Amino acid sequence: MSDKSSEAESELRQGEVVVALPAQSDAGLYFIGTIRTPWRTRQEWPKRGSLDGPICSIVVDERWRMALTDLAGHQRVQVLYWMQRARRDLVLQTPFSTMRTTGTFALRSPVRPNPIASSIVELLAIDGVTLQVRGLDCVDGTPLIDLKPEHGTAE
Amino acid sequence: MSDKSSEAESELRQGEVVVALPAQSDAGLYFIGTIRTPWRTRQEWPKRGSLDGPICSIVVDERWRMALTDLAGHQRVQVLYWMQRARRDLVLQTPFSTMRTTGTFALRSPVRPNPIASSIVELLAIDGVTLQVRGLDCVDGTPLIDLKPEHGTAE
Repeated sequence: MSDKSSEAESELRQGEVVVALPAQSDAGLYFIGTIRTPWRTRQEWPKRGSLDGPICSIVVDERWRMALTDLAGHQRVQVLYWMQRARRDLVLQTPFSTMRTTGTFALRSPVRPNPIASSIVELLAIDGVTLQVRGLDCVDGTPLIDLKPEHGTAE
Repeated sequence: MSDKSSEAESELRQGEVVVALPAQSDAGLYFIGTIRTPWRTRQEWPKRGSLDGPICSIVVDERWRMALTDLAGHQRVQVLYWMQRARRDLVLQTPFSTMRTTGTFALRSPVRPNPIASSIVELLAIDGVTLQVRGLDCVDGTPLIDLKPEHGTAE
């Protein structure tokens, strides 16, 4: 995306603590598709996806088309996606919603060392490389990382 | 790890289909810790973690120590980790357990474009940067990517 993140540029809130990031990364991710949602800005998008929310689309890159084989048989799908606007260097955060300072790993905030979000969505339909789902919470254009069938609560 | 992956070197099974991987990755991951389990080889480790399974440890790198603040208040934690021995180029797979060929995204196999595993574990204790948990299914030494509190089934 060409627009700069307000999140990445934001000033620190009271109590927030930054660490130096590692000099280099340890592994590389491929973006395997794009998530289309009604939300264009951080202000618009919900803090947390709801299975009662609007229908969103997941468009998988053509390279991975065959990997969707048999996914339509699953009602619930775990979606991993990359919150590319989030800063990665906060170890203590003070969410605006609570103004209570806590550890990054005790929050599901997109701000974390590896800004991977994980949501369980309801799979409504697959047409070619496009999935129609409910339950996402991200801004339009968010990169897709993975799709997995969801079988229950114990994973 | 210095040992070569038997998985990465394995021959294709009947029905399996490979695609060319992208020329470069799109984002970088930081390994933020190490998972210690009783399983040293692929043959030993369970296909799927169980909350009745053995206690495993998650050792978080010192850099991220403060990010663990308040995590102890959560009974269930979502753990993301990197299945570094898995090949990434299969779109159709034939799991040995079923010998039924299906799409990569219809499986939770570690073999996928981005080999990120996601498990919900029971958090038993935190001592410094070391978590004691039940519910993991990975080989000893697996790199940790993320920890998130788990609140229910809808995420």
